[in-house]
Amino acid sequence: MDDLIKHVSRLERGFTEEMILEAESQELTALFLNCTLKTSNFVSNTRVLIDKVVKKFEEQKIECEVITVLDYKVSHGISSEKEDDDDEWPIIYEKMKEADIVIFCSPIWFGVRGSVLQKVIERMIGAYADVDKKNGQYPMYGKVAGVIVTGNEDGAHNVVTTTQGNLAHMGFLIPPNSDVYWVGAAGAGPSYKEAGQKHLYTNKLVEYMSANVPFYARLIKANPNPIDIKKLTTKAKRVSDPLPDWEHREGDEASPTDRERAETDMS
Amino acid sequence: MDDLIKHVSRLERGFTEEMILEAESQELTALFLNCTLKTSNFVSNTRVLIDKVVKKFEEQKIECEVITVLDYKVSHGISSEKEDDDDEWPIIYEKMKEADIVIFCSPIWFGVRGSVLQKVIERMIGAYADVDKKNGQYPMYGKVAGVIVTGNEDGAHNVVTTTQGNLAHMGFLIPPNSDVYWVGAAGAGPSYKEAGQKHLYTNKLVEYMSANVPFYARLIKANPNPIDIKKLTTKAKRVSDPLPDWEHREGDEASPTDRERAETDMS
Amino acid sequence: MDDLIKHVSRLERGFTEEMILEAESQELTALFLNCTLKTSNFVSNTRVLIDKVVKKFEEQKIECEVITVLDYKVSHGISSEKEDDDDEWPIIYEKMKEADIVIFCSPIWFGVRGSVLQKVIERMIGAYADVDKKNGQYPMYGKVAGVIVTGNEDGAHNVVTTTQGNLAHMGFLIPPNSDVYWVGAAGAGPSYKEAGQKHLYTNKLVEYMSANVPFYARLIKANPNPIDIKKLTTKAKRVSDPLPDWEHREGDEASPTDRERAETDMS
Amino acid sequence: MDDLIKHVSRLERGFTEEMILEAESQELTALFLNCTLKTSNFVSNTRVLIDKVVKKFEEQKIECEVITVLDYKVSHGISSEKEDDDDEWPIIYEKMKEADIVIFCSPIWFGVRGSVLQKVIERMIGAYADVDKKNGQYPMYGKVAGVIVTGNEDGAHNVVTTTQGNLAHMGFLIPPNSDVYWVGAAGAGPSYKEAGQKHLYTNKLVEYMSANVPFYARLIKANPNPIDIKKLTTKAKRVSDPLPDWEHREGDEASPTDRERAETDMS
Repeated sequence: MDDLIKHVSRLERGFTEEMILEAESQELTALFLNCTLKTSNFVSNTRVLIDKVVKKFEEQKIECEVITVLDYKVSHGISSEKEDDDDEWPIIYEKMKEADIVIFCSPIWFGVRGSVLQKVIERMIGAYADVDKKNGQYPMYGKVAGVIVTGNEDGAHNVVTTTQGNLAHMGFLIPPNSDVYWVGAAGAGPSYKEAGQKHLYTNKLVEYMSANVPFYARLIKANPNPIDIKKLTTKAKRVSDPLPDWEHREGDEASPTDRERAETDMS
Repeated sequence: MDDLIKHVSRLERGFTEEMILEAESQELTALFLNCTLKTSNFVSNTRVLIDKVVKKFEEQKIECEVITVLDYKVSHGISSEKEDDDDEWPIIYEKMKEADIVIFCSPIWFGVRGSVLQKVIERMIGAYADVDKKNGQYPMYGKVAGVIVTGNEDGAHNVVTTTQGNLAHMGFLIPPNSDVYWVGAAGAGPSYKEAGQKHLYTNKLVEYMSANVPFYARLIKANPNPIDIKKLTTKAKRVSDPLPDWEHREGDEASPTDRERAETDMS
Repeated sequence: MDDLIKHVSRLERGFTEEMILEAESQELTALFLNCTLKTSNFVSNTRVLIDKVVKKFEEQKIECEVITVLDYKVSHGISSEKEDDDDEWPIIYEKMKEADIVIFCSPIWFGVRGSVLQKVIERMIGAYADVDKKNGQYPMYGKVAGVIVTGNEDGAHNVVTTTQGNLAHMGFLIPPNSDVYWVGAAGAGPSYKEAGQKHLYTNKLVEYMSANVPFYARLIKANPNPIDIKKLTTKAKRVSDPLPDWEHREGDEASPTDRERAETDMS
Repeated sequence: MDDLIKHVSRLERGFTEEMILEAESQELTALFLNCTLKTSNFVSNTRVLIDKVVKKFEEQKIECEVITVLDYKVSHGISSEKEDDDDEWPIIYEKMKEADIVIFCSPIWFGVRGSVLQKVIERMIGAYADVDKKNGQYPMYGKVAGVIVTGNEDGAHNVVTTTQGNLAHMGFLIPPNSDVYWVGAAGAGPSYKEAGQKHLYTNKLVEYMSANVPFYARLIKANPNPIDIKKLTTKAKRVSDPLPDWEHREGDEASPTDRERAETDMS
């Protein structure tokens, strides 16, 4: 009866049987991308904090995978495909596309997010060329993001807000209190592993994220966003100046602007 | 029948009759805060862009109110109460608490958000002392935020991401593509009113925001986030270092950390 | 003999007698702008840190003035002139123009610089319309800037870098290690007054700034930058597209772009 | 006679014969680091803009070298030494140490500086462990920095200010108007190569940087900053809390805080 009601309710919102079945049949999965500057041969501070959230997620039966990005060869670039023969970005990208929840985890360096997370964000630009054929939605639509940050000192707000804003622009939903961070006082000092694990503020953020992120992930999995980016783009074109020459290319319907960016040279 | 099914479905998720009835009985309302540096005696560029989103919202029967913040006297400070006799912030704060959707709108000055929006964000710190008595939720939980930005040039990403990140931390839900911005090329140049109104990229963002923000506002109004901040805070305390002296104050349960910040002197 | 040698040396670099005499005859003066959110009736945390630098400056015979910006009525706007009858910005602006060194001091709110400093930066846009008649230099050329920041937590890098970058763009010279900040660990906590005064890292920054800023202030006072902005602008125009209509206004030679911005409506 | 006067004047300021001779005997050299996401097999937009500044510098007899960072293998890390066998960072670092002027050049990606420039900044943290044995000055003291940025759209202020602020903290002097950038209007669009080369604002910035950066580079080469970081650090320690255990390590005099950071694991 429960299932039936949910089912009918969703059908009424215009979703297909297929979409609903897919949502029902899958449990939540979460991918954590650890963008530390080292490989998993070393226990990073960021990883120690990640593990606290993983534990909370697993208590809720969420299937978690933690990836240390530098365990893979990830080339600089802005496409989803291999930039060169060694490039392993597509492996990470595929995992990302399969997850309901993606948590972006980074140390702070000089007040901003580390180069590995920045490289990941750049590679994700390729997703703009990988849209849903029917409605033009970017592949990150339907997913929920979180951000975890550690640093000896200062910069967490910058890393969190820059990353959350970028991710929302790519299609992720950003829940309230979906950030977790630890930083010490001004200047260098002990790291999270030694000094931060019993820090009340950070532990509160762990709790809030671990409640909020799964709640919204379930909510939007059961209630997919029906936005039709293709139609809306066409609508926008009607009230806009005609495209300049550089934008007239074939198959450009879904998201010409951003796809262009992905195809253009890398400045 | 439709209503009945929705009703049952929600009851099953554990919401009370009262919560559901409230959600059903109210239409969506949206508050736009225009943080231009001038009063409404002048037509701001930001306002011209705001009006495009308002029109799209009204087509969806959303009740919209646009406020020019500088039409009110808003003192510098970090509390929700009057900072001085002339202070009219509480009027704006009350409107904000009543809205389902709040859209923060600002010009860019020197690459970052203008001083009026910054002042608004600072006053919103007071909300941390104004939590739900039962579950400790901040008053911005259950609301959806958007950001609208105009500038002659450069800085939109900074304004959008900083603001979205701050708002998520305060309890707002940040939907995908909930930002709208227009900027011209490097350096000064014509403003949005003259040069931006037919700009395709900005018009696309208007469409995307106008589809996404109401969708999620309805979704979370019908499916309130049950997070119990009070309980989670207590849980976090159990695994954390005891509070230092400065944090031991009465009634400190819900969110001591941030409330403290609101009560402390203004640096 | 010492003076003579210096004098000859400067003449050889092409400076006029007048310029040299002016540099010789004046002692260094420093203006500290305390952009706390309160008036000087309260002892701000930022002020306590400011006073440490003032002490070091005074030991070097630098004449220091500390202003609490909120002791003055400063309207929102982007001009150097009074925005309304009560506006006292011109008083502060004049003090700034007379100083050799200007130190911008602000608390952090929500990870970024406070609204009072942002308001100050916005008003300084007016300086682009107040250039040297001969060479078009902005009035902040020939001055050295520093930044002092306090916050319970996180955000100092953002405040410092945003402000230093803005100030360099306005004509200030930014010396190495000309920033001083204190922040506590993640989340709210005790403020600088109670917790930061013996913090080694911050005290080191106080020493470095107090050595560097006066050194460069003396150096550039004795060796003024001969840049001719007017001539360089004319040179740039020769290799650029003709000005669009909105930029064709009289007396536009010195810095049309930024002056335009100052004259345009406030978005 | 000219040389003699200069010589005496400098001796009076306390510089050694050796320091003066070194300054006199060398012409200015400038290193441009092109942090595009591609190798020099492709003509990057950033490179086209770089070449305009190089031309202006060469007209002033400054010896210029342009490096495309991705032509070298640069590993992620925070040290000056090889992070692994293939790592070629030390080659770039040595070039940097030899230059009087270093210009950091980057595309914008998602509103912030690209991952290659971020990686460069991270590697430069190693410089904190490579200080002058006598006075503890960081190796970037005595150098002048500039920043060049291109992007299809929005983000230049963020890249410029973040980078200038970081560099000042490392010891660089940041002159007024030492940034050059080009960005197009909101959203993707044509790149600098096609659309920006005749853009007046950017061409003005090219002129200003090309006048300011060499002026200050010559000025500080002839008048080295005598700051004694070691002595000042000792002075700061006297008024600070004793070092916590993690900071007590050998040979830690010059800059324990930052060196610690360099030695610590990479979060």
